[in-house]
Amino acid sequence: MPEIAPHTRLRPSPYYDATLTEGVTSFTPYNQMLIPMGYGDADAEYDRLMNGVSMWDVGGQRQVQIKGCDAARLAQILSPRDLSGQVVGQGKYVPMCNHAGTLINDPVVNKLDEDLFWFSIADSDVRLWARSIAAERGLEVEISEPDVSPMAVQGPMAVDVVASIFGNWVRNLKYFWFGDAEIGCIPVKIARSGFSKQGGFEIYLMDGSRGDELWNIVREAGRPFGIGPGYPNPCERIESGLLSCGGDSDDATNPFEVRLGKFVDLEVDDDVIGIKALRRIKEEGPKRHQLGLVLEGEMPLPDHARWYDIRADGTKIGDMTNGTWSRKLGRNIGFALISCAHRVGDRIQVSKEGQKFDGVLCDLPFR
Amino acid sequence: MPEIAPHTRLRPSPYYDATLTEGVTSFTPYNQMLIPMGYGDADAEYDRLMNGVSMWDVGGQRQVQIKGCDAARLAQILSPRDLSGQVVGQGKYVPMCNHAGTLINDPVVNKLDEDLFWFSIADSDVRLWARSIAAERGLEVEISEPDVSPMAVQGPMAVDVVASIFGNWVRNLKYFWFGDAEIGCIPVKIARSGFSKQGGFEIYLMDGSRGDELWNIVREAGRPFGIGPGYPNPCERIESGLLSCGGDSDDATNPFEVRLGKFVDLEVDDDVIGIKALRRIKEEGPKRHQLGLVLEGEMPLPDHARWYDIRADGTKIGDMTNGTWSRKLGRNIGFALISCAHRVGDRIQVSKEGQKFDGVLCDLPFR
Repeated sequence: MPEIAPHTRLRPSPYYDATLTEGVTSFTPYNQMLIPMGYGDADAEYDRLMNGVSMWDVGGQRQVQIKGCDAARLAQILSPRDLSGQVVGQGKYVPMCNHAGTLINDPVVNKLDEDLFWFSIADSDVRLWARSIAAERGLEVEISEPDVSPMAVQGPMAVDVVASIFGNWVRNLKYFWFGDAEIGCIPVKIARSGFSKQGGFEIYLMDGSRGDELWNIVREAGRPFGIGPGYPNPCERIESGLLSCGGDSDDATNPFEVRLGKFVDLEVDDDVIGIKALRRIKEEGPKRHQLGLVLEGEMPLPDHARWYDIRADGTKIGDMTNGTWSRKLGRNIGFALISCAHRVGDRIQVSKEGQKFDGVLCDLPFR
Repeated sequence: MPEIAPHTRLRPSPYYDATLTEGVTSFTPYNQMLIPMGYGDADAEYDRLMNGVSMWDVGGQRQVQIKGCDAARLAQILSPRDLSGQVVGQGKYVPMCNHAGTLINDPVVNKLDEDLFWFSIADSDVRLWARSIAAERGLEVEISEPDVSPMAVQGPMAVDVVASIFGNWVRNLKYFWFGDAEIGCIPVKIARSGFSKQGGFEIYLMDGSRGDELWNIVREAGRPFGIGPGYPNPCERIESGLLSCGGDSDDATNPFEVRLGKFVDLEVDDDVIGIKALRRIKEEGPKRHQLGLVLEGEMPLPDHARWYDIRADGTKIGDMTNGTWSRKLGRNIGFALISCAHRVGDRIQVSKEGQKFDGVLCDLPFR
């Protein structure tokens, strides 16, 4: 298989050397950084996320820092979710939209101080976007990318590992809340968050020169729990119904289409980007929705199966945006982004490049 | 080495299968697509670019289409280079800046019609940027990414290959000009352009389903000339003094610092993004400039050597943004982005992770 390494416009994550030592076998680019996507034993990597504890280099989940007297105002302008009740120490998941109401990112907005926010972003250039809006509207803010690189610790035993390093206070952190900590003089923030439904934390490393040290500290602390390397797991996240923004959305997807309507507050101020379009879409009713699908047959889909056509009675009704062999269900499953005319229980056919599968639409998350 | 393949947010180029058949060995991501960066014989790949003809999958050089009654106005707003004299069929190289005058992309702006432009972009999200500006300023435009994927044919024999396919009219195309063509009913545009100084063309494929066909047509036509696969060549482009936007620039680089001042027209209208900042920077004088550097020693730099510290008398004065073993000069060379206090002829020291090289600053391009 063709190879990749950090170069030219691709930055090494602070954990890059550590992941090479762990035997990383594949990467995906994410915000001009490489995120590991395999260590050579997919079954074991899945198993430790589901039943033990897994540690991930997600340094590519960059932080866009907004600081200054208009920071809170800009954070709200960028977020069609009402942030007025957000307090310092709390994160909020936000479907970020452009002026047409189209999803462009889905960060966790972390409030560090009354005038200081970190947008912990998915894979699109929120810094470019935020700077544009701030300058066009004449807001007094500084927008930067601080030296902050998350590592995720995920799985049912993650809490024990993280508590053994940072103390039992982390057990009481509510979901998406965060606090400051330090280990061996390495400054971090600990957030109860992460891109899985197996529970866990993200450790925000605040000194990029110390990635290997932090990796090894977590590795050692996790040894009694059987910790090992992992990554945002395509199988687990699809089984759990977790959206990949940009992976399960296209250039016209709005939050209502992909089950994020509950994070849109239509009564926020008119100056919030996309809110007028979102009100209109809500009133007219979205044209597509996201369902699950289960395919027949015992032959696993290829890794990273994506953007297969979905047909009903021979007519294209939408796309399987991502699909996977579900280890839990022993079936091929996927996300369907399809016309609202088609519903749970409908039979469909999924195809790409000569491959064809019969299947049925179902609710999300998969059960 | 860890591998990569198109998945989730990474799209296959229309030429992806053809490049696999050619034996591609490494990729770099570019605008959510993979661009080949090696085929296993770097010397031969360099040689055919310098002395023969080379064909490149640069599908990742996406087009941002701006269409509508305000298209020309928006194109100018996004470009600190005066486009008022641009005619249909002409491309112009533009250092695109944000409001602070910081370089964010360096596209070729192609004028297809009075109300239709394609920004042929480097690796950053110009579509996101352009949509933000258009919406904030209430301009009537549609901004999209059309199904257009360039293939480059570069090298001293490129003109013969491209003329043998599309006719002798291509010999008269001026640099950055383009025209419509067709081969085997595949619609393309032919532009005299490409990211090398060896001459050549970019063939803008306008039907993504026909990448393999076009690849094979060019492959066959080039056979008498010894054509083979290549890519934007790090060695040739550094030898030739070609800037990699995002590769040789950082989050504070303005066009004057990297030899693009000649493409900035300070007298354009005040509504052009960044122009006020650029006027101020010009008046105050930029703080850094870009020079070449030549290193001592016979041991080639590693592939994709980047962001080494540059010191003079022990004090850091800037960065070697990219360096390479020059096949032409038989020396290690690189781009220096350094304080204006240091000039051609000054001795410097370049270092990273324990590696150290003595060298001297020189003019660009290298001679």
